[in-house]
Amino acid sequence: MSADNQQERLNAQWITGFVDGEGCFHVAINRMPTMTIGWQVLPEFRVVQHKRDIEVLYRIQQTLKCGKVTRNHGDRFEVRVRGMKDLRQIIRFFKKYPLQTTKKANFEKFCQIISIMDNSEHLTKKGLDKIGRIISSMNERVKPAYLVSSETLRRTPR
Amino acid sequence: MSADNQQERLNAQWITGFVDGEGCFHVAINRMPTMTIGWQVLPEFRVVQHKRDIEVLYRIQQTLKCGKVTRNHGDRFEVRVRGMKDLRQIIRFFKKYPLQTTKKANFEKFCQIISIMDNSEHLTKKGLDKIGRIISSMNERVKPAYLVSSETLRRTPR
Repeated sequence: MSADNQQERLNAQWITGFVDGEGCFHVAINRMPTMTIGWQVLPEFRVVQHKRDIEVLYRIQQTLKCGKVTRNHGDRFEVRVRGMKDLRQIIRFFKKYPLQTTKKANFEKFCQIISIMDNSEHLTKKGLDKIGRIISSMNERVKPAYLVSSETLRRTPR
Repeated sequence: MSADNQQERLNAQWITGFVDGEGCFHVAINRMPTMTIGWQVLPEFRVVQHKRDIEVLYRIQQTLKCGKVTRNHGDRFEVRVRGMKDLRQIIRFFKKYPLQTTKKANFEKFCQIISIMDNSEHLTKKGLDKIGRIISSMNERVKPAYLVSSETLRRTPR
């Protein structure tokens, strides 16, 4: 398609439908020795597609007015949104145009985590554990290192 | 969710977005010795989901006013539309609310095949070969038995 088509905005409901199928609300907790608490919380929203559909990723980026299109792995590309300001915009979008599948439950947990971070609670052990417990209840295939290593979490009743 | 929610219609653009991610326009050519030509063309539209999202499949069925929800494989269910009358309705829907990904090209080839069938050309060897060539150019992971067995197709220049 032409550059003109690349600029074409997508219908908001179309985006929600596509994200219900292909989107992902993900929160990682990465070891970060330079931070006081030793761990960094990294929330992100992404949509991954084969490179043949990279154009639609650019159109999602342009319609949502945030994120960047980057290689995910091999032939797969993603539009990825990080950073609190942009993620708040994503949250506003999906509150206005609600998800229809069980992915909505993940989105709501994602919102809880963003809210905890808005209150800077993720900079405390208690807040990190709280985030860890929320992540455990999300449909994440890979458990963050923090959950594997955190003795406290294992001792804390859910 | 409650039975009330199950009745809730989906936004048409949401459905197109979801189908751009998760839908499939598929045409099989199955051996059918009882038919004069020996082969049956079986076009179908389907959306497959894990059983946790079976409700959204019912809502797609109710909104599109056709198809049936049935088990795909193991924990996966699908809303599946077969039959020319219902498939024509599907085609009208996606002409009104166009797909945005490269899946649109598959959809257009699917429409070509339905049109060939509308003209009863699939009951002739020539028509079957034409359909076979269209299927070969679709993103199908499994080649229909007809294409594997058809000497004519292999000899016919594309």
